[in-house]
Amino acid sequence: MKPIIILIEPQMGENIGAAARAMANCGLSDMRIVNPRDGWPNERADAMSSGAFAKMNPVTIYQTTAQAIADCHYVYATTARPRDMVKPVLDAKEAAHDVIRRINDGQRCAFLFGPERTGLTNEDIALSHAILTIPTNPDFPSLNLGQGVLLCAYEWYQLHHRNAPIAAPAQPKPLPAPHEELNALFDRLENALKDGHFFKTQEMRPTVMRNLKNTLARAELTSQEINTLHGVITALGAKKTQ
Amino acid sequence: MKPIIILIEPQMGENIGAAARAMANCGLSDMRIVNPRDGWPNERADAMSSGAFAKMNPVTIYQTTAQAIADCHYVYATTARPRDMVKPVLDAKEAAHDVIRRINDGQRCAFLFGPERTGLTNEDIALSHAILTIPTNPDFPSLNLGQGVLLCAYEWYQLHHRNAPIAAPAQPKPLPAPHEELNALFDRLENALKDGHFFKTQEMRPTVMRNLKNTLARAELTSQEINTLHGVITALGAKKTQ
Repeated sequence: MKPIIILIEPQMGENIGAAARAMANCGLSDMRIVNPRDGWPNERADAMSSGAFAKMNPVTIYQTTAQAIADCHYVYATTARPRDMVKPVLDAKEAAHDVIRRINDGQRCAFLFGPERTGLTNEDIALSHAILTIPTNPDFPSLNLGQGVLLCAYEWYQLHHRNAPIAAPAQPKPLPAPHEELNALFDRLENALKDGHFFKTQEMRPTVMRNLKNTLARAELTSQEINTLHGVITALGAKKTQ
Repeated sequence: MKPIIILIEPQMGENIGAAARAMANCGLSDMRIVNPRDGWPNERADAMSSGAFAKMNPVTIYQTTAQAIADCHYVYATTARPRDMVKPVLDAKEAAHDVIRRINDGQRCAFLFGPERTGLTNEDIALSHAILTIPTNPDFPSLNLGQGVLLCAYEWYQLHHRNAPIAAPAQPKPLPAPHEELNALFDRLENALKDGHFFKTQEMRPTVMRNLKNTLARAELTSQEINTLHGVITALGAKKTQ
Protein backbone atom coordinates (compact mmCIF):
# COMPACT_ATOMS: atom_id res chain seq x y z
CA MET A 1 0.00 0.00 0.00
CA LYS A 2 1.02 3.58 -0.71
CA PRO A 3 -0.41 6.93 0.34
CA ILE A 4 -3.52 8.11 -1.50
CA ILE A 5 -3.63 11.67 -2.86
CA ILE A 6 -7.05 13.33 -2.51
CA LEU A 7 -7.72 16.64 -4.29
CA ILE A 8 -10.69 18.55 -2.87
CA GLU A 9 -12.59 20.62 -5.45
CA PRO A 10 -9.60 21.35 -7.70
CA GLN A 11 -10.33 24.17 -10.13
CA MET A 12 -7.83 23.80 -12.97
CA GLY A 13 -7.34 20.66 -15.00
CA GLU A 14 -3.70 21.66 -15.53
CA ASN A 15 -3.11 21.37 -11.80
CA ILE A 16 -4.74 17.94 -11.63
CA GLY A 17 -2.50 16.82 -14.50
CA ALA A 18 0.61 18.27 -12.85
CA ALA A 19 -0.32 16.51 -9.61
CA ALA A 20 -0.72 13.20 -11.49
CA ARG A 21 2.64 13.63 -13.19
CA ALA A 22 4.29 14.33 -9.83
CA MET A 23 2.59 11.23 -8.37
CA ALA A 24 3.79 8.99 -11.19
CA ASN A 25 7.31 10.48 -10.93
CA CYS A 26 7.32 9.26 -7.35
CA GLY A 27 5.57 5.94 -7.89
CA LEU A 28 2.19 6.85 -6.37
CA SER A 29 -0.89 5.29 -7.98
CA ASP A 30 -4.08 6.37 -6.26
CA MET A 31 -5.70 9.74 -6.88
CA ARG A 32 -9.18 10.61 -5.63
CA ILE A 33 -10.98 13.85 -6.49
CA VAL A 34 -13.88 15.47 -4.67
CA ASN A 35 -16.09 17.59 -6.96
CA PRO A 36 -13.65 18.65 -9.69
CA ARG A 37 -14.89 22.05 -10.91
CA ASP A 38 -14.74 21.13 -14.60
CA GLY A 39 -15.97 17.54 -14.29
CA TRP A 40 -14.10 14.35 -15.09
CA PRO A 41 -12.37 13.25 -17.30
CA ASN A 42 -10.62 16.50 -18.13
CA GLU A 43 -8.65 17.12 -21.32
CA ARG A 44 -6.34 19.71 -19.80
CA ALA A 45 -5.46 17.34 -16.99
CA ASP A 46 -4.59 14.67 -19.55
CA ALA A 47 -2.44 17.07 -21.58
CA MET A 48 -0.51 18.28 -18.54
CA SER A 49 0.02 14.79 -17.12
CA SER A 50 2.41 13.70 -19.92
CA GLY A 51 0.80 10.26 -19.81
CA ALA A 52 0.95 9.83 -16.03
CA PHE A 53 -2.66 8.62 -15.72
CA ALA A 54 -1.80 5.54 -17.77
CA LYS A 55 0.75 4.61 -15.09
CA MET A 56 -1.76 4.93 -12.25
CA ASN A 57 -4.95 3.29 -11.07
CA PRO A 58 -8.10 4.93 -12.42
CA VAL A 59 -8.95 8.20 -10.67
CA THR A 60 -12.08 7.93 -8.50
CA ILE A 61 -14.54 10.80 -8.01
CA TYR A 62 -16.49 11.62 -4.86
CA GLN A 63 -19.19 14.08 -3.83
CA THR A 64 -17.89 14.89 -0.35
CA THR A 65 -14.65 14.77 1.58
CA ALA A 66 -16.25 12.42 4.10
CA GLN A 67 -17.02 9.93 1.32
CA ALA A 68 -13.54 10.23 -0.15
CA ILE A 69 -11.88 9.35 3.15
CA ALA A 70 -14.50 6.85 4.35
CA ASP A 71 -12.16 3.84 4.11
CA CYS A 72 -9.02 5.65 5.32
CA HIS A 73 -7.48 5.01 8.71
CA TYR A 74 -5.33 8.13 8.88
CA VAL A 75 -5.61 11.40 7.00
CA TYR A 76 -3.11 14.28 6.68
CA ALA A 77 -4.52 17.73 5.88
CA THR A 78 -2.03 19.83 3.90
CA THR A 79 -2.15 23.54 4.64
CA ALA A 80 0.25 26.45 4.28
CA ARG A 81 -1.10 28.25 7.30
CA PRO A 82 -0.99 26.79 10.77
CA ARG A 83 -4.58 26.66 12.01
CA ASP A 84 -5.76 27.04 15.51
CA MET A 85 -6.52 23.35 16.01
CA VAL A 86 -5.00 20.90 18.42
CA LYS A 87 -3.53 18.29 16.07
CA PRO A 88 -0.06 17.01 15.35
CA VAL A 89 1.73 19.28 12.86
CA LEU A 90 4.25 17.55 10.58
CA ASP A 91 6.42 18.77 7.76
CA ALA A 92 6.63 16.76 4.54
CA LYS A 93 9.59 14.67 5.66
CA GLU A 94 8.10 13.93 9.06
CA ALA A 95 4.83 13.00 7.37
CA ALA A 96 6.73 10.63 5.06
CA HIS A 97 8.25 8.87 8.06
CA ASP A 98 4.89 8.74 9.78
CA VAL A 99 2.93 7.48 6.79
CA ILE A 100 5.46 4.74 6.03
CA ARG A 101 5.22 3.51 9.61
CA ARG A 102 1.43 3.53 9.48
CA ILE A 103 1.25 1.78 6.11
CA ASN A 104 3.60 -0.89 7.47
CA ASP A 105 1.06 -1.31 10.28
CA GLY A 106 -1.67 -1.89 7.67
CA GLN A 107 -3.28 1.54 7.76
CA ARG A 108 -4.77 3.10 4.63
CA CYS A 109 -3.53 6.69 4.59
CA ALA A 110 -4.31 9.76 2.53
CA PHE A 111 -2.98 13.28 1.96
CA LEU A 112 -5.74 15.89 1.47
CA PHE A 113 -5.17 18.96 -0.74
CA GLY A 114 -7.67 21.83 -0.85
CA PRO A 115 -8.78 24.03 -3.77
CA GLU A 116 -6.09 26.22 -5.35
CA ARG A 117 -7.31 29.57 -4.09
CA THR A 118 -8.61 28.84 -0.64
CA GLY A 119 -6.96 25.67 0.57
CA LEU A 120 -8.74 23.21 2.82
CA THR A 121 -11.74 24.36 4.84
CA ASN A 122 -11.64 24.09 8.60
CA GLU A 123 -14.33 21.43 8.28
CA ASP A 124 -12.08 19.26 6.09
CA ILE A 125 -9.18 19.78 8.46
CA ALA A 126 -11.37 18.76 11.38
CA LEU A 127 -11.96 15.42 9.65
CA SER A 128 -8.19 14.86 9.46
CA HIS A 129 -5.87 13.40 12.03
CA ALA A 130 -2.80 15.52 11.42
CA ILE A 131 -1.73 18.73 9.69
CA LEU A 132 1.03 18.65 7.09
CA THR A 133 2.75 21.99 6.54
CA ILE A 134 5.60 22.34 4.08
CA PRO A 135 8.09 24.95 5.28
CA THR A 136 8.42 27.64 2.62
CA ASN A 137 9.58 31.24 2.38
CA PRO A 138 7.28 33.21 4.74
CA ASP A 139 7.40 36.12 2.28
CA PHE A 140 6.05 33.92 -0.58
CA PRO A 141 4.65 30.78 0.97
CA SER A 142 1.90 29.59 -1.35
CA LEU A 143 2.78 26.47 -3.32
CA ASN A 144 1.03 25.60 -6.55
CA LEU A 145 -1.19 22.51 -6.12
CA GLY A 146 1.01 20.30 -8.29
CA GLN A 147 4.12 21.49 -6.45
CA GLY A 148 2.57 20.66 -3.07
CA VAL A 149 1.63 17.18 -4.24
CA LEU A 150 5.15 16.73 -5.64
CA LEU A 151 6.89 17.60 -2.38
CA CYS A 152 4.75 15.18 -0.36
CA ALA A 153 5.20 12.42 -2.95
CA TYR A 154 8.93 13.12 -3.26
CA GLU A 155 9.59 12.84 0.45
CA TRP A 156 7.65 9.59 0.56
CA TYR A 157 9.54 8.19 -2.43
CA GLN A 158 12.98 9.11 -1.09
CA LEU A 159 12.28 7.38 2.22
CA HIS A 160 10.39 4.45 0.76
CA HIS A 161 13.23 3.54 -1.54
CA ARG A 162 16.05 4.29 0.81
CA ASN A 163 14.94 2.55 3.96
CA ALA A 164 14.05 -1.04 4.48
CA PRO A 165 10.64 -1.41 6.06
CA ILE A 166 10.82 -0.58 9.75
CA ALA A 167 10.65 -3.67 11.96
CA ALA A 168 7.09 -4.56 12.78
CA PRO A 169 6.10 -4.04 16.42
CA ALA A 170 5.99 -7.16 18.60
CA GLN A 171 2.22 -6.95 18.80
CA PRO A 172 0.30 -5.56 15.87
CA LYS A 173 -1.13 -2.20 16.86
CA PRO A 174 -4.90 -2.08 16.30
CA LEU A 175 -5.90 -0.08 13.27
CA PRO A 176 -7.81 3.13 13.70
CA ALA A 177 -11.40 2.63 12.57
CA PRO A 178 -12.29 3.44 8.97
CA HIS A 179 -13.50 7.00 8.77
CA GLU A 180 -17.10 6.10 8.03
CA GLU A 181 -17.42 4.61 11.53
CA LEU A 182 -16.09 7.81 13.01
CA ASN A 183 -18.57 9.82 10.93
CA ALA A 184 -21.46 7.66 12.08
CA LEU A 185 -20.42 8.27 15.68
CA PHE A 186 -20.19 12.03 15.05
CA ASP A 187 -23.65 12.06 13.46
CA ARG A 188 -25.19 10.17 16.32
CA LEU A 189 -23.48 12.36 18.90
CA GLU A 190 -24.61 15.54 17.15
CA ASN A 191 -28.22 14.37 17.11
CA ALA A 192 -28.11 13.33 20.75
CA LEU A 193 -26.60 16.66 21.73
CA LYS A 194 -29.23 18.52 19.77
CA ASP A 195 -31.94 16.58 21.63
CA GLY A 196 -30.18 17.47 24.87
CA HIS A 197 -30.18 21.20 24.05
CA PHE A 198 -26.38 21.21 24.16
CA PHE A 199 -26.06 23.90 21.50
CA LYS A 200 -27.00 27.23 22.98
CA THR A 201 -27.46 28.73 19.53
CA GLN A 202 -27.82 27.23 16.09
CA GLU A 203 -24.82 29.27 14.91
CA MET A 204 -22.38 27.72 17.35
CA ARG A 205 -23.29 24.16 16.41
CA PRO A 206 -20.76 23.70 13.53
CA THR A 207 -17.90 25.12 15.60
CA VAL A 208 -18.71 23.02 18.65
CA MET A 209 -19.03 19.88 16.54
CA ARG A 210 -15.76 20.67 14.77
CA ASN A 211 -14.00 20.97 18.11
CA LEU A 212 -15.45 17.66 19.28
CA LYS A 213 -14.39 16.01 16.02
CA ASN A 214 -10.88 17.37 16.43
CA THR A 215 -10.76 15.96 19.94
CA LEU A 216 -11.96 12.50 18.93
CA ALA A 217 -9.97 12.30 15.68
CA ARG A 218 -6.81 12.85 17.69
CA ALA A 219 -7.51 9.71 19.71
CA GLU A 220 -7.27 7.48 16.60
CA LEU A 221 -10.24 5.46 17.84
CA THR A 222 -10.44 1.76 16.98
CA SER A 223 -13.68 0.16 15.83
CA GLN A 224 -14.06 -1.44 19.25
CA GLU A 225 -13.61 1.90 20.97
CA ILE A 226 -16.22 3.46 18.72
CA ASN A 227 -18.63 0.68 19.68
CA THR A 228 -17.89 1.40 23.32
CA LEU A 229 -18.60 5.10 22.80
CA HIS A 230 -21.93 4.24 21.18
CA GLY A 231 -22.68 2.30 24.34
CA VAL A 232 -21.63 5.28 26.43
CA ILE A 233 -24.01 7.58 24.56
CA THR A 234 -26.83 5.07 25.06
CA ALA A 235 -26.08 4.64 28.73
CA LEU A 236 -25.79 8.35 29.47
CA GLY A 237 -29.10 9.03 27.79
CA ALA A 238 -30.76 6.16 29.60
CA LYS A 239 -29.89 7.05 33.14
CA LYS A 240 -32.81 9.31 33.96
CA THR A 241 -35.34 6.76 32.79
CA GLN A 242 -34.18 3.87 34.94
CA MET B 1 24.74 34.21 -1.25
CA LYS B 2 22.34 31.58 -2.50
CA PRO B 3 22.41 29.15 -5.41
CA ILE B 4 21.63 30.59 -8.84
CA ILE B 5 19.11 28.80 -11.09
CA ILE B 6 20.06 28.82 -14.79
CA LEU B 7 17.52 27.69 -17.40
CA ILE B 8 19.09 26.73 -20.74
CA GLU B 9 16.86 27.44 -23.77
CA PRO B 10 13.54 26.92 -22.01
CA GLN B 11 10.66 26.53 -24.45
CA MET B 12 7.49 27.35 -22.55
CA GLY B 13 6.92 30.54 -20.61
CA GLU B 14 4.65 28.62 -18.24
CA ASN B 15 7.61 26.52 -17.15
CA ILE B 16 9.78 29.58 -16.57
CA GLY B 17 6.99 31.05 -14.44
CA ALA B 18 6.55 27.83 -12.48
CA ALA B 19 10.30 27.68 -11.88
CA ALA B 20 10.26 31.27 -10.60
CA ARG B 21 7.35 30.52 -8.27
CA ALA B 22 9.20 27.49 -6.91
CA MET B 23 12.33 29.60 -6.39
CA ALA B 24 10.45 32.31 -4.50
CA ASN B 25 8.67 29.64 -2.42
CA CYS B 26 12.11 28.54 -1.30
CA GLY B 27 13.70 31.94 -0.94
CA LEU B 28 15.91 31.85 -4.05
CA SER B 29 16.40 35.14 -5.88
CA ASP B 30 18.64 34.72 -8.92
CA MET B 31 17.41 33.29 -12.21
CA ARG B 32 19.44 33.40 -15.40
CA ILE B 33 18.12 32.28 -18.78
CA VAL B 34 20.10 31.27 -21.84
CA ASN B 35 18.26 31.92 -25.12
CA PRO B 36 14.60 31.66 -24.07
CA ARG B 37 12.68 30.40 -27.13
CA ASP B 38 9.96 33.04 -26.90
CA GLY B 39 12.16 35.97 -25.88
CA TRP B 40 12.08 37.96 -22.66
CA PRO B 41 10.01 39.25 -20.88
CA ASN B 42 7.31 36.62 -21.34
CA GLU B 43 3.66 37.14 -20.44
CA ARG B 44 2.97 33.48 -19.82
CA ALA B 45 5.90 33.28 -17.46
CA ASP B 46 4.55 36.28 -15.56
CA ALA B 47 1.05 34.78 -15.34
CA MET B 48 2.31 31.42 -14.08
CA SER B 49 4.67 32.96 -11.55
CA SER B 50 1.90 34.33 -9.30
CA GLY B 51 4.00 37.41 -8.69
CA ALA B 52 7.23 35.57 -7.89
CA PHE B 53 9.40 37.76 -10.14
CA ALA B 54 8.62 40.77 -7.96
CA LYS B 55 10.20 38.92 -5.01
CA MET B 56 13.40 38.12 -6.93
CA ASN B 57 16.29 39.98 -8.49
CA PRO B 58 15.74 40.86 -12.17
CA VAL B 59 16.19 37.86 -14.48
CA THR B 60 19.32 38.14 -16.63
CA ILE B 61 19.52 36.81 -20.19
CA TYR B 62 22.56 35.25 -21.88
CA GLN B 63 23.47 34.00 -25.33
CA THR B 64 25.45 30.95 -24.31
CA THR B 65 25.80 28.64 -21.32
CA ALA B 66 29.46 29.59 -21.02
CA GLN B 67 28.51 33.26 -20.60
CA ALA B 68 25.78 32.44 -18.10
CA ILE B 69 28.17 30.56 -15.83
CA ALA B 70 31.22 32.77 -16.44
CA ASP B 71 31.31 34.16 -12.87
CA CYS B 72 30.34 30.87 -11.13
CA HIS B 73 32.81 28.85 -9.09
CA TYR B 74 30.85 25.59 -9.10
CA VAL B 75 28.06 24.38 -11.39
CA TYR B 76 25.69 21.42 -10.98
CA ALA B 77 24.17 19.96 -14.17
CA THR B 78 20.72 18.50 -13.51
CA THR B 79 19.84 15.43 -15.57
CA ALA B 80 17.47 12.52 -15.22
CA ARG B 81 19.78 10.09 -16.97
CA PRO B 82 23.21 9.23 -15.68
CA ARG B 83 25.69 10.12 -18.42
CA ASP B 84 28.92 8.51 -19.25
CA MET B 85 31.10 11.20 -17.73
CA VAL B 86 33.54 11.09 -14.88
CA LYS B 87 32.06 13.60 -12.49
CA PRO B 88 30.64 13.48 -9.00
CA VAL B 89 26.95 12.42 -9.10
CA LEU B 90 24.78 13.86 -6.33
CA ASP B 91 21.08 13.64 -5.54
CA ALA B 92 19.14 16.81 -4.63
CA LYS B 93 19.76 16.49 -0.90
CA GLU B 94 23.46 15.77 -1.32
CA ALA B 95 23.72 18.72 -3.68
CA ALA B 96 22.02 20.94 -1.07
CA HIS B 97 24.62 19.94 1.51
CA ASP B 98 27.41 20.46 -0.97
CA VAL B 99 26.22 23.84 -2.23
CA ILE B 100 25.71 25.22 1.28
CA ARG B 101 29.26 24.24 2.20
CA ARG B 102 30.64 25.84 -0.97
CA ILE B 103 28.63 29.04 -0.53
CA ASN B 104 29.88 29.29 3.05
CA ASP B 105 33.37 29.08 1.57
CA GLY B 106 32.55 32.05 -0.66
CA GLN B 107 31.87 30.17 -3.90
CA ARG B 108 29.22 31.38 -6.35
CA CYS B 109 27.23 28.27 -7.34
CA ALA B 110 24.57 27.49 -9.93
CA PHE B 111 22.16 24.70 -10.88
CA LEU B 112 21.77 24.21 -14.65
CA PHE B 113 18.50 22.97 -16.18
CA GLY B 114 18.20 21.97 -19.84
CA PRO B 115 15.35 22.46 -22.33
CA GLU B 116 12.09 20.63 -21.55
CA ARG B 117 12.26 18.01 -24.29
CA THR B 118 15.90 17.16 -24.51
CA GLY B 119 17.53 18.10 -21.25
CA LEU B 120 21.08 19.39 -21.06
CA THR B 121 23.45 18.69 -23.94
CA ASN B 122 26.62 16.79 -23.27
CA GLU B 123 28.46 20.03 -24.04
CA ASP B 124 26.66 21.86 -21.24
CA ILE B 125 27.26 18.99 -18.87
CA ALA B 126 30.92 19.05 -19.78
CA LEU B 127 31.05 22.69 -18.59
CA SER B 128 29.69 21.62 -15.20
CA HIS B 129 31.54 20.33 -12.15
CA ALA B 130 29.01 17.81 -10.88
CA ILE B 131 25.88 15.98 -11.99
CA LEU B 132 22.68 16.33 -9.99
CA THR B 133 20.19 13.50 -10.48
CA ILE B 134 16.88 13.43 -8.63
CA PRO B 135 15.81 9.85 -7.89
CA THR B 136 12.37 9.23 -9.44
CA ASN B 137 10.26 6.29 -10.52
CA PRO B 138 12.29 4.49 -13.25
CA ASP B 139 9.03 3.72 -15.03
CA PHE B 140 8.11 7.44 -15.26
CA PRO B 141 11.24 9.43 -14.49
CA SER B 142 10.89 12.71 -16.36
CA LEU B 143 10.22 15.71 -14.13
CA ASN B 144 8.60 18.84 -15.48
CA LEU B 145 11.09 21.75 -15.54
CA GLY B 146 9.31 23.65 -12.77
CA GLN B 147 9.13 20.49 -10.65
CA GLY B 148 12.86 19.84 -11.06
CA VAL B 149 13.69 23.40 -10.02
CA LEU B 150 11.34 23.07 -7.06
CA LEU B 151 12.98 19.92 -5.71
CA CYS B 152 16.48 21.41 -5.89
CA ALA B 153 15.30 24.65 -4.30
CA TYR B 154 13.28 22.79 -1.66
CA GLU B 155 16.21 20.66 -0.51
CA TRP B 156 18.38 23.77 -0.29
CA TYR B 157 15.73 25.64 1.69
CA GLN B 158 15.10 22.81 4.16
CA LEU B 159 18.80 22.55 4.97
CA HIS B 160 19.45 26.28 4.94
CA HIS B 161 16.63 26.88 7.41
CA ARG B 162 17.05 23.68 9.38
CA ASN B 163 18.00 25.48 12.54
CA ALA B 164 15.53 28.29 12.17
CA PRO B 165 12.09 27.79 13.67
CA ILE B 166 9.81 26.47 10.95
CA ALA B 167 6.06 26.66 10.68
CA ALA B 168 5.68 28.30 14.05
CA PRO B 169 2.06 27.83 15.12
CA ALA B 170 0.14 31.09 15.20
CA GLN B 171 -0.73 30.27 18.80
CA PRO B 172 1.32 28.12 21.14
CA LYS B 173 -0.06 24.59 21.30
CA PRO B 174 -2.31 24.26 24.35
CA LEU B 175 -1.02 22.00 27.10
CA PRO B 176 -2.90 18.85 27.94
CA ALA B 177 -5.00 19.34 31.06
CA PRO B 178 -3.50 18.49 34.44
CA HIS B 179 -4.29 14.93 35.31
CA GLU B 180 -6.61 15.81 38.16
CA GLU B 181 -9.04 17.29 35.64
CA LEU B 182 -8.90 14.09 33.63
CA ASN B 183 -9.52 12.05 36.77
CA ALA B 184 -12.51 14.19 37.73
CA LEU B 185 -13.93 13.60 34.24
CA PHE B 186 -13.36 9.85 34.55
CA ASP B 187 -15.02 9.75 37.99
CA ARG B 188 -18.03 11.62 36.76
CA LEU B 189 -18.27 9.46 33.65
CA GLU B 190 -18.00 6.27 35.69
CA ASN B 191 -20.82 7.37 38.00
CA ALA B 192 -23.02 8.39 35.12
CA LEU B 193 -22.40 5.08 33.37
CA LYS B 194 -23.19 3.19 36.55
CA ASP B 195 -26.48 5.08 36.80
CA GLY B 196 -27.14 4.20 33.18
CA HIS B 197 -26.53 0.46 33.80
CA PHE B 198 -23.65 0.52 31.32
CA PHE B 199 -21.64 -2.13 33.21
CA LYS B 200 -23.25 -5.52 32.69
CA THR B 201 -21.40 -6.97 35.67
CA GLN B 202 -19.54 -5.39 38.56
CA GLU B 203 -16.40 -7.38 37.63
CA MET B 204 -16.09 -5.88 34.17
CA ARG B 205 -16.29 -2.32 35.43
CA PRO B 206 -12.55 -1.74 36.07
CA THR B 207 -11.57 -3.15 32.66
CA VAL B 208 -14.16 -1.14 30.78
CA MET B 209 -13.19 2.03 32.60
CA ARG B 210 -9.52 1.38 31.92
CA ASN B 211 -10.24 1.05 28.23
CA LEU B 212 -12.22 4.28 28.21
CA LYS B 213 -9.41 6.04 30.06
CA ASN B 214 -6.89 4.77 27.54
CA THR B 215 -9.03 6.08 24.74
CA LEU B 216 -9.42 9.53 26.23
CA ALA B 217 -5.87 9.81 27.54
CA ARG B 218 -4.59 9.25 24.01
CA ALA B 219 -6.41 12.37 22.87
CA GLU B 220 -4.29 14.55 25.22
CA LEU B 221 -7.38 16.54 26.15
CA THR B 222 -7.03 20.21 27.00
CA SER B 223 -8.86 21.77 29.94
CA GLN B 224 -11.31 23.38 27.55
CA GLU B 225 -12.02 20.06 25.89
CA ILE B 226 -12.62 18.45 29.26
CA ASN B 227 -15.13 21.18 30.05
CA THR B 228 -16.84 20.48 26.75
CA LEU B 229 -17.03 16.77 27.56
CA HIS B 230 -18.61 17.58 30.93
CA GLY B 231 -21.21 19.51 28.96
CA VAL B 232 -21.67 16.54 26.64
CA ILE B 233 -22.33 14.20 29.59
CA THR B 234 -24.85 16.65 31.01
CA ALA B 235 -26.60 17.09 27.66
CA LEU B 236 -26.78 13.39 26.88
CA GLY B 237 -28.24 12.66 30.29
CA ALA B 238 -30.70 15.52 29.96
CA LYS B 239 -32.26 14.58 26.69
CA LYS B 240 -34.99 12.26 27.93
CA THR B 241 -36.21 14.77 30.50
CA GLN B 242 -36.87 17.67 28.10
